Amino acid sequence: MRCLSREDLARVANELRDELIALGAAGGGHFAGSLGVVELTVALHTVFETPDDRVIWDVGHQAYGHKALTGRREALARIKRSDGPSGFLRRAESPYDVFGAGHAGTSISAALGVAEAFARSGSPRRAVAVIGDGGATAGMAFEALNHAGHLGAALRVVWNDNGMAIAPNVGGLARTRDVRGYIESLGLLYLGPIDGHDLDALLDALAALRDADGPAVLHVRTRKGCGYAPAEADPYGWHATAPFERTSGARAASASGGPPSWTAAFADALARIADHDPRVVAITAAMPDGTGLDRFARRHPDRVYDVGIAEQHAVTFAAGLAAEGLRPVCAIYSTFLQRAFDQIVHDVALQELPVIFALDRAGLVGGDGPTHHGVFDFAYLRMIPHLVVAAPRDENELGRLLATAVESARPFAIRFPRGAARGVPLDPEPKPLEIGRGELLHDGDAVALVAIGSTVAPALEAAERLAAGGIRCSVVDARFAKPLDADLLERVAKRARAVVCVEDHVLAGGFGSGVLELLAERAPGVPVQRLGLPDAFVEHGEIERQWRSAGIDVDAIEAAALEALHAKSGSRDG
Amino acid sequence: MRCLSREDLARVANELRDELIALGAAGGGHFAGSLGVVELTVALHTVFETPDDRVIWDVGHQAYGHKALTGRREALARIKRSDGPSGFLRRAESPYDVFGAGHAGTSISAALGVAEAFARSGSPRRAVAVIGDGGATAGMAFEALNHAGHLGAALRVVWNDNGMAIAPNVGGLARTRDVRGYIESLGLLYLGPIDGHDLDALLDALAALRDADGPAVLHVRTRKGCGYAPAEADPYGWHATAPFERTSGARAASASGGPPSWTAAFADALARIADHDPRVVAITAAMPDGTGLDRFARRHPDRVYDVGIAEQHAVTFAAGLAAEGLRPVCAIYSTFLQRAFDQIVHDVALQELPVIFALDRAGLVGGDGPTHHGVFDFAYLRMIPHLVVAAPRDENELGRLLATAVESARPFAIRFPRGAARGVPLDPEPKPLEIGRGELLHDGDAVALVAIGSTVAPALEAAERLAAGGIRCSVVDARFAKPLDADLLERVAKRARAVVCVEDHVLAGGFGSGVLELLAERAPGVPVQRLGLPDAFVEHGEIERQWRSAGIDVDAIEAAALEALHAKSGSRDG
Repeated sequence: MRCLSREDLARVANELRDELIALGAAGGGHFAGSLGVVELTVALHTVFETPDDRVIWDVGHQAYGHKALTGRREALARIKRSDGPSGFLRRAESPYDVFGAGHAGTSISAALGVAEAFARSGSPRRAVAVIGDGGATAGMAFEALNHAGHLGAALRVVWNDNGMAIAPNVGGLARTRDVRGYIESLGLLYLGPIDGHDLDALLDALAALRDADGPAVLHVRTRKGCGYAPAEADPYGWHATAPFERTSGARAASASGGPPSWTAAFADALARIADHDPRVVAITAAMPDGTGLDRFARRHPDRVYDVGIAEQHAVTFAAGLAAEGLRPVCAIYSTFLQRAFDQIVHDVALQELPVIFALDRAGLVGGDGPTHHGVFDFAYLRMIPHLVVAAPRDENELGRLLATAVESARPFAIRFPRGAARGVPLDPEPKPLEIGRGELLHDGDAVALVAIGSTVAPALEAAERLAAGGIRCSVVDARFAKPLDADLLERVAKRARAVVCVEDHVLAGGFGSGVLELLAERAPGVPVQRLGLPDAFVEHGEIERQWRSAGIDVDAIEAAALEALHAKSGSRDG
Repeated sequence: MRCLSREDLARVANELRDELIALGAAGGGHFAGSLGVVELTVALHTVFETPDDRVIWDVGHQAYGHKALTGRREALARIKRSDGPSGFLRRAESPYDVFGAGHAGTSISAALGVAEAFARSGSPRRAVAVIGDGGATAGMAFEALNHAGHLGAALRVVWNDNGMAIAPNVGGLARTRDVRGYIESLGLLYLGPIDGHDLDALLDALAALRDADGPAVLHVRTRKGCGYAPAEADPYGWHATAPFERTSGARAASASGGPPSWTAAFADALARIADHDPRVVAITAAMPDGTGLDRFARRHPDRVYDVGIAEQHAVTFAAGLAAEGLRPVCAIYSTFLQRAFDQIVHDVALQELPVIFALDRAGLVGGDGPTHHGVFDFAYLRMIPHLVVAAPRDENELGRLLATAVESARPFAIRFPRGAARGVPLDPEPKPLEIGRGELLHDGDAVALVAIGSTVAPALEAAERLAAGGIRCSVVDARFAKPLDADLLERVAKRARAVVCVEDHVLAGGFGSGVLELLAERAPGVPVQRLGLPDAFVEHGEIERQWRSAGIDVDAIEAAALEALHAKSGSRDG
């Protein structure tokens, strides 16, 4: 590509855009972001000597064109499937993916490290971060720019300004649009702004960026969805899409008639609670659609805060609201709330402020893969004093747990999975539950199956299968990972020949580990087997395969119960 | 104070400064920060209607004057002691401490939450954050400013610019000093700069800040240590101090002849390894003294990065360095590394990059209290796939573990406590150990005492006491919390009547929880008792009392072993 004329490069860009549109039409997926950087992608790979020069993309939603140009054209049709490439950047996938991504705002830090390593070894190679104005709302992007302005390393940054995160971008900087003032105040050279769809201008500007002496930022203005009219008109709606008919832009209808998504169920339950409780407000970190707060806002438009991709601030801001009597609900995906672990400990739990955390996308998430699984939350939350940690088995329980949280005035986390909820009927009004009280859903004395959240349904199904074979197991919905229902768990454990815990979460320190801790005191000698994710990152792919492979589906629970029964279990008292 | 004339206020300020100097001379402690804000503290409490107006201080090192003016004058002599006030802000301590602090950069987020809550309720009360230019290098402070510029809430910020964090402040903004450009680019009103030691100017400027319509930042220039010549001349050296002779500034010599601090032992071991390995570089988040990197830099001045109070960036920057072949060591206190939990998962462990984490101040830290204890690290680290997690029992083992980490090319965390190390002789060259191999330090078949890091010594002492009474216990130094030495632990557990684990860490999900998980598989039926911190935040105070109260000292270990022996333990096979 580096030998092509500018006219030929323009043709490459047009073909690439055409291909991305065809790909989206056929398979759906993340769409508008990559269309917005077609010319930029072509220009970057032309001006820089990739992969020797390191181009580091932020997040990856916009990197489909990059993947197509770097040997993954065919594979893109299988993106996010277990037999296809990752939806994000991934070092193992290509030498052109020089630094993995998935969570926003990491690229400048990584590129600065790379640039500094090159400077130490005297290498002439270059490091370029490509970050959106949305990603740049993440505090760590500021930290990295500020450090770069101090170090003076030859860091290059392309600031892809399309006015959008997933939703329209927020923040004072998005309002003033004074990117120059911001960048220069941090001591970096500002170049631009230029039109990111003008390939000639891009090639010239990137060459200037390449040849800059110190840390420099090129400000590129792009239009998310560029080149596909429906996406340009509604880039938010076309951030990700279902397959569509190319000419009309008509999109495949999502399946109707099934149960609501967990996300919608959360939004609706919260809206109903907020109807009667003016203290309830909701906070999203730049994901009003993914978290359901768009939907909540239709009923309570003045009670939603979009703080940008700023989970740390979201949590401490919520703590400030809570300190003055409000009941803020931080609706943040499980994996993204990892960004605010310290703030949960330090600003919420230590002060016992009534902040509610609604963790969507908990557990395995399928195609988005290891950067997006929410499989650490039981562990990183249950260690925190004063925090209540719960997971509903169905959407009605979700409403009840939200009501419980609001009423409790305690720091309270509720995690629930991606996808469709269970389709159960809903209480007219969500009523609070007793904190720390689980539920015995199925009685029996062979094996006690202890589940929580999304593993309750498969545990019940396994118990029914076992019952059909004459083996009666108890099934406990623990409901709370913290505090555990110690009395109930002790009772069922002591009556059973063994306990089998199951969770869609890592085994190390997780829910089952908490049950093990409890039973080591309350029912010592009762064998406890834990099913959950092994000590490894789970690759992207189909979620059913992930569950099967992790050994937490119905078959695995049934097998574990049988094995526990037949094992030469130690005799014991009690 | 609000009725006093300006002359009287100036007298109050002078008296306050005098008292702070007397306090520092008598008892030592955090010193220079509070001296730098004497006039500001007096002016804030004069211009704003505290505590109805909410003044929210960042961190708290500079808030001793605030404490003195708000009813804690006498108590300050006992600061950080179990019978005295916290060294930081604390809601439970005073209605004037409206939001707790300890970790930097939280005040703007909290104040914005408070301001927004007031706006919702139509309250005329005001919210003011007081943040240093050091604290403002934290990404979350940027996130909060950016959100404030978007919201337009009547947030007030006092930007206390003394050019210092603990050490001289770093970052591009500290270099350009263009605070106005930075603040205005984010859409906030900039006021100032003013001289923070000119009380008249301060009173006028704070009144203007108070009466501003939207979000506004008052830029105040102060001198850390102001009013005490030795501290003004060396504010870094006087950030915290030993007791001193007021006239000469001569400071009490620290005790000599004892063992080195863990911090010094770390710095020296790392320096020796770096002598032979040019890949080793070290990173601090604005704590070159506390982490020992000042000391390391005396031998390797060009191999230390101070990135500012920016733990998130520190970790991903390290990952970038590691991706290009370096062996970065992030020297970050256990409690502050909580800020980078997501980056450890997402940027280091997932990509298996060889970043080394050296977690100083792990475990209980005494006087600094709950915001500074490093008691969650085993739990938040051991859940992460690919990460090695270790803790040395003495400073020689620390050197060996560092050598192991550098050689291993794996993501690797080493935690060690505050205070004096053990005083053991050091190997001429630190040699790598086998990863996942513990050590049997004492043999016996009554009870197996399983310890790690700082609990190995008390476990050994307990075993010696028990041996004196004819009870022979084994003592295992697990050395690695992950991977555990499964064979060794299985062997000692199966031979013993019970296992007692001990850690200076929360019980939920911690080291002992990992041992329990392992033994539930490898040695089911063996009773395991875990000693560690209960599910509560441990208040500030004397560290020996904290250990005793948590039940992890020698007496507690001895008692637990005896109890385990005498308990009617379940019979079992094996």
